[in-house]
Amino acid sequence: MNDVFLKACRGESVPYTPVWLMRQAGRFMKEYREVRDTVDFLTLCKTPELAAKVTFQPVDLLGVDAAILFSDILIPVEAMGMRLEFSEKKGPVLHDPIRSRAHVDRLSVPVPEDDLSFVMETIKILRAGLKVPLIGFSGAPFTLATYMIEGGSSKNFLATKKMMYQSNGLYGSLMDKITDTVSAYLKAQIKAGAQVVQIFDTWAGVLSPADFKAYALPYVKRIIKELKGLDVPVIYFVNGCAGLLKEIKSAGADVLGVDWRIDMADAARSLGKKAVLQGNLDPCALLMPKEDIRRKAQDIIEKGLKAKGHVFNLGHGVLPEIPAENVKYLVDAVHEISAEARR
Amino acid sequence: MNDVFLKACRGESVPYTPVWLMRQAGRFMKEYREVRDTVDFLTLCKTPELAAKVTFQPVDLLGVDAAILFSDILIPVEAMGMRLEFSEKKGPVLHDPIRSRAHVDRLSVPVPEDDLSFVMETIKILRAGLKVPLIGFSGAPFTLATYMIEGGSSKNFLATKKMMYQSNGLYGSLMDKITDTVSAYLKAQIKAGAQVVQIFDTWAGVLSPADFKAYALPYVKRIIKELKGLDVPVIYFVNGCAGLLKEIKSAGADVLGVDWRIDMADAARSLGKKAVLQGNLDPCALLMPKEDIRRKAQDIIEKGLKAKGHVFNLGHGVLPEIPAENVKYLVDAVHEISAEARR
Repeated sequence: MNDVFLKACRGESVPYTPVWLMRQAGRFMKEYREVRDTVDFLTLCKTPELAAKVTFQPVDLLGVDAAILFSDILIPVEAMGMRLEFSEKKGPVLHDPIRSRAHVDRLSVPVPEDDLSFVMETIKILRAGLKVPLIGFSGAPFTLATYMIEGGSSKNFLATKKMMYQSNGLYGSLMDKITDTVSAYLKAQIKAGAQVVQIFDTWAGVLSPADFKAYALPYVKRIIKELKGLDVPVIYFVNGCAGLLKEIKSAGADVLGVDWRIDMADAARSLGKKAVLQGNLDPCALLMPKEDIRRKAQDIIEKGLKAKGHVFNLGHGVLPEIPAENVKYLVDAVHEISAEARR
Repeated sequence: MNDVFLKACRGESVPYTPVWLMRQAGRFMKEYREVRDTVDFLTLCKTPELAAKVTFQPVDLLGVDAAILFSDILIPVEAMGMRLEFSEKKGPVLHDPIRSRAHVDRLSVPVPEDDLSFVMETIKILRAGLKVPLIGFSGAPFTLATYMIEGGSSKNFLATKKMMYQSNGLYGSLMDKITDTVSAYLKAQIKAGAQVVQIFDTWAGVLSPADFKAYALPYVKRIIKELKGLDVPVIYFVNGCAGLLKEIKSAGADVLGVDWRIDMADAARSLGKKAVLQGNLDPCALLMPKEDIRRKAQDIIEKGLKAKGHVFNLGHGVLPEIPAENVKYLVDAVHEISAEARR
């Protein structure tokens, strides 16, 4: 069993910097596309044998130090009672977006073991077969709320902020329900076998620091607090975190995920005493010639050594257009460079 | 003549914090929509009487302390030889995006007085009628390059970064041509009467700090250096600047525009000794109840007082969905609060 990633998450000393990649199971990989050609995205998420199969792929083919459950952040939202669809063109669509008190009241807080049993089954299959630790995950409440209120992706998040800025309590009621859902969902994943969990706040970076502190962070804190007793490291990833470091530091997470739009040295200085850092290569940097990929990885690894601990990752998910051989090259380079740097 | 804005840009003492708003001439305003209903967007940009008319509107109706030339950042790109179209759905479209050496070689560096004479005429009409200073502007080279390479807006800027990361010199050649264009364009605007110029780097925030320093900043620096002798304050606005402060500080601009995803206190601490700051209310905050708009403005004004100087603005453009009365309320509130704070 390779436990380097788990040790790094706990801030323990490790022989090299462990690496996994957000969206490491994905379209950039031929083996994934072969599975996806036979089945639509949602069915793939909901079929334990297939979801497990694509989760295993990057572990075997890329040599990463952790696996992450193949799923989508909107899976628990569907279980709350919204109709979810993945459109090839528009991405995720949530029909009948939430705008009223009556609609919030109609949403349920799912019982994950029953309503999301396919996730728990996938986790069990994975734990039986994996030689690296398994990461479970959920979207963060604010990020899930944006999809639920906007009905999909958004440019300016106007409907979300409109609801957020009203003082009628609607936003708070919605966020409470999402928070309870995420909390129960992550607990169930841990109970089923997830050894680390990551909370993805993909859109929190569109908030001003004051708004992040008022409207997003308290709900994440509540979740992390509820998970504390379970002795499983929690990773909190905020995409677009550069202006929010002071606030993120107080989230209570063991590991803080850092996107690429901040220098890892700055992140290490601001956050690195308090938490292990995860990140932060620009996903597009994998388009570079190999020697440049290596140079960029080396820079991040060296800066990461100044933090309490470091898990190498991209600053966001692997893009479908990236050559798979460059991804494999990166994983190997991180292992080599970081082992060398520790000698 | 109201010269509070000009004085603030120069770091001189002022009786209150001057305010103007990015996209202050726009769809949120009935008077603008009435003009736009009679003419398409590009024709509006290219008809001096009409462009001047909508430039005057917010000065008269909102009481802002500066006017900004009504135009679009892609106007000089069209003059370089690309076909520009504004689609209601997709936004700006540049046909036949740039991917080859032959295409870069075909682009011309326009002579602004001839090829963009309508802009210079608009500026002359404006200077004859304005009682506040006039801001000219251009897109920054990197931001213009993204549109030219992607063919429009983009999500991941993959084509741009691909060209950027190649070592065949193509990206540099393109950027040199754009830089020469922007430089000549801003000089011509100043010669025609622009009293301040702003360089908009709308998309530079998608770059890692190292990439921003290597692939965007040098070109902006070159432009600002060329404008130095003309004794006109230069504003450099980077959207998504929080992770780039160290680099932006060295651009040489008199005023640095700051988006809303950073606390103004942090911006003042990092940049505020070197430059006057401009910003940084979240455009969506104008959806708030008036007392909350006031509270947010007050917070920014107080933090702005710690900088060398402060020009109040939004962190990005006014959105079409914003109630015009809230915009007017903000402008008045900034004047009142900031005059009071200086007593």
